[in-house]
Amino acid sequence: MRVCFYGNTGHALTAIAAKQKLPQVDYVAFCPSYSGENMEKVKSSASNAGYNLKEYCDVDEMLKIEKPDILVVDNRFTERYPVEKKALSAGIHVYADKPIATNIADLNDLYRTATKTNSTIWAMHTTRYDPHFYTIRQLIQDGAIGKVRMVNCQKSYRLGIRPAFFSERKTYGGTIPWVSIHAIDMIRMVTGKECISVYSTQSSADNFGNGDMEIITTSSFELEDDILATVTADYYRPSNA
Amino acid sequence: MRVCFYGNTGHALTAIAAKQKLPQVDYVAFCPSYSGENMEKVKSSASNAGYNLKEYCDVDEMLKIEKPDILVVDNRFTERYPVEKKALSAGIHVYADKPIATNIADLNDLYRTATKTNSTIWAMHTTRYDPHFYTIRQLIQDGAIGKVRMVNCQKSYRLGIRPAFFSERKTYGGTIPWVSIHAIDMIRMVTGKECISVYSTQSSADNFGNGDMEIITTSSFELEDDILATVTADYYRPSNA
Repeated sequence: MRVCFYGNTGHALTAIAAKQKLPQVDYVAFCPSYSGENMEKVKSSASNAGYNLKEYCDVDEMLKIEKPDILVVDNRFTERYPVEKKALSAGIHVYADKPIATNIADLNDLYRTATKTNSTIWAMHTTRYDPHFYTIRQLIQDGAIGKVRMVNCQKSYRLGIRPAFFSERKTYGGTIPWVSIHAIDMIRMVTGKECISVYSTQSSADNFGNGDMEIITTSSFELEDDILATVTADYYRPSNA
Repeated sequence: MRVCFYGNTGHALTAIAAKQKLPQVDYVAFCPSYSGENMEKVKSSASNAGYNLKEYCDVDEMLKIEKPDILVVDNRFTERYPVEKKALSAGIHVYADKPIATNIADLNDLYRTATKTNSTIWAMHTTRYDPHFYTIRQLIQDGAIGKVRMVNCQKSYRLGIRPAFFSERKTYGGTIPWVSIHAIDMIRMVTGKECISVYSTQSSADNFGNGDMEIITTSSFELEDDILATVTADYYRPSNA
């Protein structure tokens, strides 16, 4: 199976990390998702895995010439839909960093497109398979704590130096889709239940000059079977923690 | 100052705990707030502090004869307003367990009444003065952690055997006014800011046969200055914890 890369704003490298377990996978090419994007890590990671990726400047050209089976989509958060749609429409599977969409209409269209072309779009919820989270899920499913009634999650990121597009809502898409999404996925994973309602708050005050970027958020969920959940996310984790 | 007691569903005894620091206080009488209410602890605590309380069956009679300066109100949660109103209207100060009201109209009327008669109504937010919480407040005010941006609180109560009136919403008033209220007060206390909006969820499912009683709740707040907060409350604390 041939794999191409589009952009590297997030976790594209997790595709290469899977190499050991998937001998049938070939990594063939990459294309930056915007002018000047640093793709060195994709190149060097592939190189360390024994692949010399071909570089393209245009994603259409890459798809046309390389005819990949899988496209790794890792561009700016609000710009994913068009390229995901393009790939899925051509029957190319998509492995995209979260969020795979930043509005409901796009998300629904991706679902319909993938269904129609029998292709798969898979979000990089890799934390699901971290040993500690995976073990928690297994223990809960085995009944180790009884019935789950409430789940409270905290995601605290280090702020560090974020790329410029994090500061603009129109390219960033929001801290809830970017950070909280892991906890939201975790809640669905450990309970096995779907969300019925959600209420969120957010604030970009005191965000150390990061423009629109929400530095704190809270979300409150009602799930099936009367389960309640909360998620808070923040970029206030100390840099040395 | 003469103190009378009305009911003991909650923390009336904290009034007697203050005795050491208030030599001018006299404890004079009590009255159960409903037929058959167990007032033994009020009697024996007062007795241990050197006071032999007179017993009444009717609160009007007690107020008329004893003319207290302070009435300790500790009856069923939704039934506090009428007796608080009565006392405040007569210029008697009220020391009431939380919640002091279970609807906004009653709360506002209590405020107006107390203002008019120059009397004071004080809720039993005694946890404020627990050494650990008081110290946290002092440290925050001293700038020990910088600016507060988010506050997340959990209140986990042991379920135990609750009096029957907990099972009926019309006498209980709700787990948020009864349990979460401490955390809500704490948030206002440590931040020094007021709430602008609140959203809450609650569930009485899996409450071990306790009728209407909400066994889990979540609340999400926006405060002044873009501070966000969450509170969860539950009665699932293990009985041995």
